[in-house]
Amino acid sequence: MWNRSILRGSALCGAIALAACSPRGEQAPAAGAPAASPAGNGSVASLMRARKLAEPDVTAALKTYTPTGVHDEYLMFASGGHSGQVLVVGLPSMRILKVIAVFTPEPWQGYGYGDQTNAVLASGNRDGQELSWADTHHPALSEMAGDYDGKFLFIGDKANARLAVIDLHDFVTKQIVVSNLIESDHGAAFVTPNTEYVIEPTQYPAPLGGGFAPIEEYDEKYRGAVLFWKFDRSKGRLDPAASFAIEVPPYMQDLADAGKLVSDGFAFVNSFNTERSYGGTLEGRPPLESGASQNDTDYLHVIDWRKAEAAVAAGKAETIRDMKVLRLPVAVAEGILHFIPEPKSPHGVDVTPDGKDIVVSGKLDTHATIYSFEKVKALIDQKKYVGTDPYGVPILPFEEAIRAQVEIGLGPLHTQYDDQGNAYTSLFLESKVAKWNVAEARVIEKIPAHYNVGHIAAAEGDTVSPDGRFLVMINKWAIDRFSGVGPLLPQNMQLVDLTSSPMQLLYDMPVPIGEPHYAQIIKADKLAPIEVYTPVGTDPITNAKAADAVEASQERIERRPDGVHVYMTAVRSHFTPDIVRVKEGEKVHLHLTNVEQAKDATHGFAIGSHNVNVSIEPGEHADIEFVAQRSGVFPMYCTEFCSALHLEMAGYLLVEPK
Amino acid sequence: MWNRSILRGSALCGAIALAACSPRGEQAPAAGAPAASPAGNGSVASLMRARKLAEPDVTAALKTYTPTGVHDEYLMFASGGHSGQVLVVGLPSMRILKVIAVFTPEPWQGYGYGDQTNAVLASGNRDGQELSWADTHHPALSEMAGDYDGKFLFIGDKANARLAVIDLHDFVTKQIVVSNLIESDHGAAFVTPNTEYVIEPTQYPAPLGGGFAPIEEYDEKYRGAVLFWKFDRSKGRLDPAASFAIEVPPYMQDLADAGKLVSDGFAFVNSFNTERSYGGTLEGRPPLESGASQNDTDYLHVIDWRKAEAAVAAGKAETIRDMKVLRLPVAVAEGILHFIPEPKSPHGVDVTPDGKDIVVSGKLDTHATIYSFEKVKALIDQKKYVGTDPYGVPILPFEEAIRAQVEIGLGPLHTQYDDQGNAYTSLFLESKVAKWNVAEARVIEKIPAHYNVGHIAAAEGDTVSPDGRFLVMINKWAIDRFSGVGPLLPQNMQLVDLTSSPMQLLYDMPVPIGEPHYAQIIKADKLAPIEVYTPVGTDPITNAKAADAVEASQERIERRPDGVHVYMTAVRSHFTPDIVRVKEGEKVHLHLTNVEQAKDATHGFAIGSHNVNVSIEPGEHADIEFVAQRSGVFPMYCTEFCSALHLEMAGYLLVEPK
Repeated sequence: MWNRSILRGSALCGAIALAACSPRGEQAPAAGAPAASPAGNGSVASLMRARKLAEPDVTAALKTYTPTGVHDEYLMFASGGHSGQVLVVGLPSMRILKVIAVFTPEPWQGYGYGDQTNAVLASGNRDGQELSWADTHHPALSEMAGDYDGKFLFIGDKANARLAVIDLHDFVTKQIVVSNLIESDHGAAFVTPNTEYVIEPTQYPAPLGGGFAPIEEYDEKYRGAVLFWKFDRSKGRLDPAASFAIEVPPYMQDLADAGKLVSDGFAFVNSFNTERSYGGTLEGRPPLESGASQNDTDYLHVIDWRKAEAAVAAGKAETIRDMKVLRLPVAVAEGILHFIPEPKSPHGVDVTPDGKDIVVSGKLDTHATIYSFEKVKALIDQKKYVGTDPYGVPILPFEEAIRAQVEIGLGPLHTQYDDQGNAYTSLFLESKVAKWNVAEARVIEKIPAHYNVGHIAAAEGDTVSPDGRFLVMINKWAIDRFSGVGPLLPQNMQLVDLTSSPMQLLYDMPVPIGEPHYAQIIKADKLAPIEVYTPVGTDPITNAKAADAVEASQERIERRPDGVHVYMTAVRSHFTPDIVRVKEGEKVHLHLTNVEQAKDATHGFAIGSHNVNVSIEPGEHADIEFVAQRSGVFPMYCTEFCSALHLEMAGYLLVEPK
Repeated sequence: MWNRSILRGSALCGAIALAACSPRGEQAPAAGAPAASPAGNGSVASLMRARKLAEPDVTAALKTYTPTGVHDEYLMFASGGHSGQVLVVGLPSMRILKVIAVFTPEPWQGYGYGDQTNAVLASGNRDGQELSWADTHHPALSEMAGDYDGKFLFIGDKANARLAVIDLHDFVTKQIVVSNLIESDHGAAFVTPNTEYVIEPTQYPAPLGGGFAPIEEYDEKYRGAVLFWKFDRSKGRLDPAASFAIEVPPYMQDLADAGKLVSDGFAFVNSFNTERSYGGTLEGRPPLESGASQNDTDYLHVIDWRKAEAAVAAGKAETIRDMKVLRLPVAVAEGILHFIPEPKSPHGVDVTPDGKDIVVSGKLDTHATIYSFEKVKALIDQKKYVGTDPYGVPILPFEEAIRAQVEIGLGPLHTQYDDQGNAYTSLFLESKVAKWNVAEARVIEKIPAHYNVGHIAAAEGDTVSPDGRFLVMINKWAIDRFSGVGPLLPQNMQLVDLTSSPMQLLYDMPVPIGEPHYAQIIKADKLAPIEVYTPVGTDPITNAKAADAVEASQERIERRPDGVHVYMTAVRSHFTPDIVRVKEGEKVHLHLTNVEQAKDATHGFAIGSHNVNVSIEPGEHADIEFVAQRSGVFPMYCTEFCSALHLEMAGYLLVEPK
């Protein structure tokens, strides 16, 4: 890296005092003297000395600093890792703008503390098991014609094989789907170029549809699958009934990517552990980490999803746990599934913006391998196989499928693209990102990461037209980068300027909640979220006026056979009603509408000792059902600092003894 | 604000190209030409033009930008509001370094997904009601001699009247205490100068000890209380048995502060709603917001806690729901409690660093009112009362208790201090912070906030020796400050440089998770968190070696009458055992030790479809108990990207049918 000492105390630096830049054209003050600028003291030079900033630090600061009221140019949607949530980060400032509650209850958003969001979460339970967390991995923005359209975001849960749909019109999670066909995923979600499907491949094989099988029958009874979830754009929901899966052998499938432009209609999924090792460290077998690393190559799965779609339509699928499944023999017979050898233990499989090439990086191989879609397609059409795998899947010849291999370094993992024909591949073991020219298959330069970079995300980097502006390195170890915060450290996202030559490291961003496995970056002006809910009384999950929406002056308390119905409104700074009188043991149905329409006029509503808290944005309606189990006096209040008299936005739930 | 246009395209700016600062002393390039600096392109001037930065933006950028690997100077501990957590933010970079799980389950930290942390959370349940969230309000760093010592952090839960203890040796929540004496708090936590006690006053009155009383008997049966939780520093725990409370009238008590130096031994608590209004918007009564705003003054509560401590020791307390309570007549008779009128609807009560003055701001009054402790103490000693309140509490004369009132602006709320004898008071309605001289009782200047500033936090601002470097404005509305992220907006913390004149706004930080009600800022070098747990097998809650800690080579599976005990270790990149075979319905006790001692070598451990996830930092031990309820094959894996072969750090839970 650069030498930090070069500028310390240098008299030359005095000449760049900021006052030199004033419209009045005064002379710059002497070295070290603060500039007489009206707002802010200190020249650039004196600030550099005071804070020990080197030249690149100054340019990095000016490339990232985003003044008050100025909006970020890009939004990055990053997985929140095992927090179960999604992070929204502004670029270039690298500030976290929102943590969207997805799979894990989150009380600020009232997510999981009221009826509407409880129902969303409950739809993600598996076989009656309540799940209150997830290991979110790959966020995928919805696309039209291969470009992010800013409408929806999908994200998968590796731990429990689930997918969530977030509507970017209000940044709220609308749907969680679970397929009991599989037990885990990894590379979810990936979308096809018009978001026809969201792709979810399994990670760890298990008997399809659940159920027990001895591990010793792994080869025979364990399987993977690649799920294609149909997306209904008009409803903003995944449609399980129109979705299907393709059975694959019990390798560990990993990341995926959809073909685009010339390769549209295909999906590419890589795999590791074609050795079919399954551990057994206390049973005399090697751990997976060595058992799964014996072969020199694994298999790139090439899937013709249009053919698969046609086969399903032709009734060739078998239904397992409500999912239509094209079994392996069908997938082979229909020409839906082909394999190509790929370098040892690959992680990323990334189609180039023009759709012509597919780049695979094997973590235990030092190359990026460039497959040519044209060659692959020709081999498939010619049925030119070098054999089949133990499950009968035809294998295409590696040498004839690739265009080139590029020696890029140690532990290559994931590739992104810019608008100049360059690729960027993370090198986990080398803790660097390599920039290389795709056409020339030639490395241009590398930039260090701190440390152990996993995935990387380039601005619009998964589209047909990447922007080439920024790259974010998602580093897995931070070690010494930040002040100590105990043994559990943040991870480190690093922002890189791709427009400078060499690439310039701009910013270190600690990640304070979960491991952000992967991210996508979209131009901010592609998003047009709403500011308030209209009409007043909107249920954010259905995006329609709620059945029990309450209008001002229509507030009331009704006793019905199913319990006490409280129709309540919130407005700065009171609830109506603010006194709710019930009897011990009664069921309470609270129907609460924020009748405000001013931007940012959010109210909260909490009841002490009842585990109730909802966030009601302007115009939003929420329902809350609970049983008044204990007699007593329980304060209810607005949990937002909504006005000067917000403390007075309160009342009581009075529960009279039976 | 400044005029952004003054520098755009100005030829003068070319003269400040960064290359002028190179050690080689070359001439600066012509205006607009990028500097030929080796890392990073662009001169200051060209970057200013390109990004439309004004002069103050440049100084602000250079005052806050923290280069890669450089640590922040201060750490701010901010409440996470209704997220239930605590945010750790570095200054001046304003990056969130960690979200500490406190009252709400958080899977990244495994908090609430394993036995140890489940027990911490369960200790915060109220009367059998599980509580999975909190409205965290006031973080308080532990103190010695009135100065932050960097050892512990306390934070209260307004919604459920609870307190948590976070140990800063590992940034982990160790204890949650609940007193069933009260139903809500607000101004918690505040500590006495040697952390003898943590102060928790109620917010909304209720019958002491819980139970029902009609709201119409509010005056007679509803009460507040001020709790003094004894802190046992050697154990790092609050000691309920050694704690006590003082009963106070059913006003709404609010913030508190402990006296220091000359005023040590006293506590000051303010109040609003001395009108004893209790709403009833659907019952023909006014809402609290108007009912509680009738009187011109409320009561500052002056508490002699050393006298209270003595009265408790003398057996004058009554025990209610396990809490020793000094009832009102005792508190009055013993000279423990006095009132002084204070301006309408006050929020902050803030003792000056020298302990001589107490500053109160009333939100519906335009003044900061400066009470003199010397005068107050003399009035108490002379028993110079102007009367008593309806509950017999003696009232000291307002005019004789104050030293001055300063006209500071609209909606004054909370006051912090610097090292130059200045106070800073937030003005919620005016959206500004006023800087004023305490001795001279004179306003110096104001700085705008964006928008509606609530609390403010100055560097070491609640101690006997504030640093006077930075101030953070915790603004409640962001409105237009950030890119749209749906109707629920982030809030905006703004960093202010107190060393410049006038004060300079440095940075806007969106708050992505919960409303950070209040914060404290400590010099980073006062903290010395551990990097790994030693010895290997440490239980982070007890901070001692766990009974079931597992050593490498001692891994085993034992079947006992109470279930299957699995003694497992984690090390890059495998678990031993990695295959766990149980029968459907069996109880599983998993004992898991991360046997690594390398900094940052954290592993996670998840079991699919079982809602199990723990985070095990180097040397940490965790226990996980669950019932294998459904037969099947469930992947187990490490949820951290711990090595290049982290995907292979996996195994299976095999549940055979009965």
